[in-house]
Amino acid sequence: MSSKQIPKTLPPNTNLSKYHDYIARAVEIAGADNVKIIEQDSTLIDGDYMHPCKGHDMHAVYDREYFVASAIIFPKDVPDVQSIMRLCNEFEIPVWTYSIGRNTGYGGAAPRVPGSICMDLGRHMNRVLEVNVDGAYALVEPGVTFFDLHEYLESHDLRKHLWLDVPDLGGGSIIGNAVERGVGYTPYGDHWMMHCGLEVVLPSGDLVRTGMGAMPNSSDPEILKARPDLQPPNRAWQLFNYGFGPYNDGIFTQSSLGIVVKMGIWLMPNPGGFQAYLITLPDDNALVQALEITRPLRIAMVLQNVPTFRHILLDAAVAGPKSSYTDSDEPLTDEQLDEIAKRLDLGRWNFYGALYGPEPVRNALWGAIKGAYSQIEGARFYFPEDRNEPKSGIPSVDELDWVSWLPNGAHLFFSPISQISGKDALAQYELTTKRCREAGLDFIGTFVVGLREMHHIVCIVFNREDKKSRERALWVMRTLIDDCAARGWGEYRTHLAAMDQIASTYNFNDNALMKLNETIKNALDPKGILAPGKNGIWPKNYPKADWVISNDGVSKSRL
Amino acid sequence: MSSKQIPKTLPPNTNLSKYHDYIARAVEIAGADNVKIIEQDSTLIDGDYMHPCKGHDMHAVYDREYFVASAIIFPKDVPDVQSIMRLCNEFEIPVWTYSIGRNTGYGGAAPRVPGSICMDLGRHMNRVLEVNVDGAYALVEPGVTFFDLHEYLESHDLRKHLWLDVPDLGGGSIIGNAVERGVGYTPYGDHWMMHCGLEVVLPSGDLVRTGMGAMPNSSDPEILKARPDLQPPNRAWQLFNYGFGPYNDGIFTQSSLGIVVKMGIWLMPNPGGFQAYLITLPDDNALVQALEITRPLRIAMVLQNVPTFRHILLDAAVAGPKSSYTDSDEPLTDEQLDEIAKRLDLGRWNFYGALYGPEPVRNALWGAIKGAYSQIEGARFYFPEDRNEPKSGIPSVDELDWVSWLPNGAHLFFSPISQISGKDALAQYELTTKRCREAGLDFIGTFVVGLREMHHIVCIVFNREDKKSRERALWVMRTLIDDCAARGWGEYRTHLAAMDQIASTYNFNDNALMKLNETIKNALDPKGILAPGKNGIWPKNYPKADWVISNDGVSKSRL
Repeated sequence: MSSKQIPKTLPPNTNLSKYHDYIARAVEIAGADNVKIIEQDSTLIDGDYMHPCKGHDMHAVYDREYFVASAIIFPKDVPDVQSIMRLCNEFEIPVWTYSIGRNTGYGGAAPRVPGSICMDLGRHMNRVLEVNVDGAYALVEPGVTFFDLHEYLESHDLRKHLWLDVPDLGGGSIIGNAVERGVGYTPYGDHWMMHCGLEVVLPSGDLVRTGMGAMPNSSDPEILKARPDLQPPNRAWQLFNYGFGPYNDGIFTQSSLGIVVKMGIWLMPNPGGFQAYLITLPDDNALVQALEITRPLRIAMVLQNVPTFRHILLDAAVAGPKSSYTDSDEPLTDEQLDEIAKRLDLGRWNFYGALYGPEPVRNALWGAIKGAYSQIEGARFYFPEDRNEPKSGIPSVDELDWVSWLPNGAHLFFSPISQISGKDALAQYELTTKRCREAGLDFIGTFVVGLREMHHIVCIVFNREDKKSRERALWVMRTLIDDCAARGWGEYRTHLAAMDQIASTYNFNDNALMKLNETIKNALDPKGILAPGKNGIWPKNYPKADWVISNDGVSKSRL
Repeated sequence: MSSKQIPKTLPPNTNLSKYHDYIARAVEIAGADNVKIIEQDSTLIDGDYMHPCKGHDMHAVYDREYFVASAIIFPKDVPDVQSIMRLCNEFEIPVWTYSIGRNTGYGGAAPRVPGSICMDLGRHMNRVLEVNVDGAYALVEPGVTFFDLHEYLESHDLRKHLWLDVPDLGGGSIIGNAVERGVGYTPYGDHWMMHCGLEVVLPSGDLVRTGMGAMPNSSDPEILKARPDLQPPNRAWQLFNYGFGPYNDGIFTQSSLGIVVKMGIWLMPNPGGFQAYLITLPDDNALVQALEITRPLRIAMVLQNVPTFRHILLDAAVAGPKSSYTDSDEPLTDEQLDEIAKRLDLGRWNFYGALYGPEPVRNALWGAIKGAYSQIEGARFYFPEDRNEPKSGIPSVDELDWVSWLPNGAHLFFSPISQISGKDALAQYELTTKRCREAGLDFIGTFVVGLREMHHIVCIVFNREDKKSRERALWVMRTLIDDCAARGWGEYRTHLAAMDQIASTYNFNDNALMKLNETIKNALDPKGILAPGKNGIWPKNYPKADWVISNDGVSKSRL
């Protein structure tokens, strides 16, 4: 890192000289190897989300040079994170944090404000600090991926005791996924619900432990070792979330109020057995029927895990690109979809589930489940002996293969929440398919059934080298946000480019929730340095009119 | 209500004339019938927690005339609550809210700051707004008790679909219990975990809906009715907690940041059958062994509900007062405890649990459970045919009968959290028993096993007419708080008199959590009007040195 380097984009209200002063101070804190300027003439690397140099959206759908950091800092430890936050306050330079930097489909490793410093927590802070078998939990740092923890359990011979829930992408950060409220597919699929205890660096640089972690003797392994007289030492930080007084953990999710640097995560005790299954559904009516059957079974926990109802094109796209199915660029027709389903020996919709427990328990549950879904004409039932669909708590990497559906494939996620119902599923499918077809795109998506709701995850695949394709993808998302808001469907998470638009749909009582969020933001981060604009929350020193990206995609602050 | 009435205690920084102006304005808002001054010469009613005139601690353990409101306001509806908050801001008069006003053992209906206005939400705002069978939830107002909702389910013939989790006292508010993070004993025992969606009046008087409630079309039944064109209308407020952006709900629990005026609560689908059971444990070693057996079974959910391990005196005290067992005032000896256990045909510890599901499921689980606990020598196994211990989701009122253990019985709860372990249970039992005996009191308590921790609920019973008895009870609690903090055990909830002391034990990193809480408090409530001092959080206009009750029980602000 040379202090003469010129970044692609400077942070707002910063000149080059001030910026170089900041960088010099950052180097003093983290070391030259851990500060990297994204130079003016550097090429941003699309698609390669494994690449160590991030700070931008690797599935760029907006102007490629807009959501780009000026530099990336790789803190060595928590004190580095604290020092960098203090430095950012001193210079009033915005900072955006990520753990591993995936967040694929939602903006990747890019900051909301161009020229922000990106803080990459994962490169150095990547230890599994503890795995506790009795309490069935782990305490991890931001850089610990689902893979890492899985491998830790394997190499310490702990998988006989504890299993790990995994999302689609095992290479992502456990902390990053949980604080963005991502989901997995086992009974522990609601990762945020299954977290327990946080250590957080506040925008001021102060360090807080939440819940029982605020009891020193309950959270500090050093004290526990040093005071054998206080036996049995209690260690409840990862056992009881709420602690005493206001339960603050939630404000550190999908937010710009703090940086989670340690988190407890509950692990599933080895259930004594596992059986994945697949139920293929011949058509859209079967999907409607299946969701009506699913709702009571899921709420009663007969369906133990998080069921997913995948559209045929999601599996088709994993198996091969669009060009392997058709020569046409047009969206596939219903007939073509049926043909593909037949070719892959799958349904138009495919329900992936899993049974947990000793064999007699699994058999009893499978009997009940098979009985219930057998009401659906044409449904077929499979075990993984027939198929290769591991969902047993072993992370997989190939799940993003469907982005190769188009050449130079990249994607956006559009993910509205609704009640678990066949009518809602059909209405959302018809609406999203209509908009996709209007844009010349194929619908690829899945319904993921949580405890009492479903996440509809629409994978908007586009050709990242084709400006028109990118524009169409954005148009589909922006149009669907408004379509859905009118029907009461809100998104649970979104790409940087749509944060303002979606936040504006959560507008009950003259945007009362946003006013509350802004009040807390301004109190905890008076200089607005941590992730300004994240999920539509702008600190008071960022005039909203200048920064908001309007519903047609335009921002005054666009370069 | 006459405007000439003089209250027992004026709010701080308020003279009588200003106070009467405030009251006159409050009467304009809520009506004369709904504003009641607690007059100078009125007698505070101890023990009678069913009494409609509250505003004080009905189990007074501290100076009886200290934690007392100046007046009680009974808002008719949400706009009244908002108007009263605005009025309190205008006059800078503190307000303390409760739903039904139980909170027994933790301060009842009393405010932390003497002379506060108490807002009794429960008298008028007591509607079950919705019970949704498909989504298995209810939407309730603060005055809806566990009884009320149970009766609603009964009278609408809904108990065949939905069951309600109940805490010890069915007459308490569902909202009040959940926001204080109380627990029940069914699989839905963590009431806060099972809430979904809040409507909250902020200290400013502004009204916020959280989660999907911030989507107007997702939360407003009027819009849903008025727009049949937007079919199917989505109603996810009670189905998905997190919404979009920071998940704020937790900051409205055990806090002074807002008044919850509507809350969704998830109900348990009728599990297809229920079987309560009792396992008696002969001695303390059996308790230790039982908890070691319990931990993995609970984490694996073989134990489906929230098991409680009750000390013999808890059941003995429900059966009759101390005088029915002994003529002595001294704490009971081990021999006497054994004798009582024999007389009641119970163990020294008694494990109350329940099985849920169709008969074959219950039988399989009972086989596994009986097998596991049969390792304990002397354990005995019962079904409710033998005993009268309903735990099937029908609220009970008799559970507080144990306070009659002493004449003029009242109580304090002391409730530390620990890991689920026999060693911890024994250490806590020995410590609490020792302190109780030093104070001449009997140990009465129970271990309540949550998901990965246990709440140890110690019922400190005292004679409320005997100053010495009250002082001893307070001494036991204050001493135990420090004893436990040194060992890393922190309390999950406490009486007004110990809030400052307990908050000071959650002091990691120079009280970083308290500083965070204070920052948020001052931002949302700049005039410090809502529940100042609650759980140790003092707004900036209440100088801590004046208000804090020190660990020996003294406050500068004591009258």
